[in-house]
Amino acid sequence: MSTTIRKAVPSDVPLILEFIRALAVYEREPDAVTATEADLLRDGFGPEPYYHCLIAEQDGKPAGFAFYFFNYSTWTGRPGLYLEDLFVNPEFRGFGIGKALLARVAAIAVEKGCPRLQWEVLDWNTPAVDFYAALGASFLDEWRNVRMTGEALERLAALDSTRVEANV
Amino acid sequence: MSTTIRKAVPSDVPLILEFIRALAVYEREPDAVTATEADLLRDGFGPEPYYHCLIAEQDGKPAGFAFYFFNYSTWTGRPGLYLEDLFVNPEFRGFGIGKALLARVAAIAVEKGCPRLQWEVLDWNTPAVDFYAALGASFLDEWRNVRMTGEALERLAALDSTRVEANV
Repeated sequence: MSTTIRKAVPSDVPLILEFIRALAVYEREPDAVTATEADLLRDGFGPEPYYHCLIAEQDGKPAGFAFYFFNYSTWTGRPGLYLEDLFVNPEFRGFGIGKALLARVAAIAVEKGCPRLQWEVLDWNTPAVDFYAALGASFLDEWRNVRMTGEALERLAALDSTRVEANV
Repeated sequence: MSTTIRKAVPSDVPLILEFIRALAVYEREPDAVTATEADLLRDGFGPEPYYHCLIAEQDGKPAGFAFYFFNYSTWTGRPGLYLEDLFVNPEFRGFGIGKALLARVAAIAVEKGCPRLQWEVLDWNTPAVDFYAALGASFLDEWRNVRMTGEALERLAALDSTRVEANV
C-alpha cells in the first residue's frame, strides 16, 4: 500500500469535478454544484490560476484531493494558504490519506512563506473537528461568515453605479 | 460633502497600514499587526498582486478603505470576491462611506463575474451584523473557521517531508 500526492494537471479536471460533487453530497448539498469541466479548466490552468489542486493516489488509484488558493493576512503582511476543499473517497478512508494531503498543503504553505493555513469545517462534522483539533488547529468561533449573492449582490452593486453616475 | 472612491496606488501604502492598524484596535487586537509598508508594497503592487485595495475620500481627506482579493467557489466554478477588511475612520462615520465602499466592492464582484461576495464579522459587532443583514447578506453559521499557525503548522508540514523522503 502506498500513497502518492501530486499536483493536478489539466487532464485531471473530470476527476476534480467528481471529487467536488462527492464532497457536496457529503456536505448535504448534492444539487449545489453547477461548476463545469470548462470552468475548472479555465480557472485552474491558465497563466494566473485562481486555484491549485493536489491529487492523492492510493496504489495508483485516485483517492482524494485538496483544493486551495492564496488569501492575504493584513495583520502579518503575508499571503496565507486557504484550503477550500479536502476530500477522501469513502473507500479509501483509514489509510491516513486526508492527513497526508493536509501535510502536503501545510508544507506548501511553509515553503511559500505563509504564516497561516486556514479552512472551514461544518459544525456537525465532529470527526473532522476532532482531527483538526488534535493536529493543533484553532477555531475562530468569534468570527461569523457573511455572504452576499444573487439579487442582494446585484442591488448593492447597483448602488455603486448610481453613485458613479451622480459624481460624474 | 462628497465621497469619492478610488483604487489604491503604491504611495497609499502608509495610509493602508494606518487603516489596518486602526481596524486592529477596533477589533481589540492592537498588537496583532506586524505587517510593514514593504510587505504591503511587495504584495499589492507587483505583476501578480495578492490583494487589491480601494481608498474612500471625504472632501479630499482619506476616510476609509476596503481590502480584498479573489477566492474560488468549487460549487459554482467561478472566482468569488473576498473582502478581508472594510474600515471607516470614526470621524467619518455616518456619511454612508462604509456602504459606498461595500457597494463599489459589490460592483467589482459583479463586473468580474463573481457570484459571491464574502467576508467575516465579529459576533459582538452588532451594528455591523445588522447593517449587513439589512443589505440582504446571509450568515453561514454552520461553518467554523479553522486556522493553523506557528509550531502546529511546522509540525504538520514536517510530516510531509518525512513522507516525501520515504517515498523517494
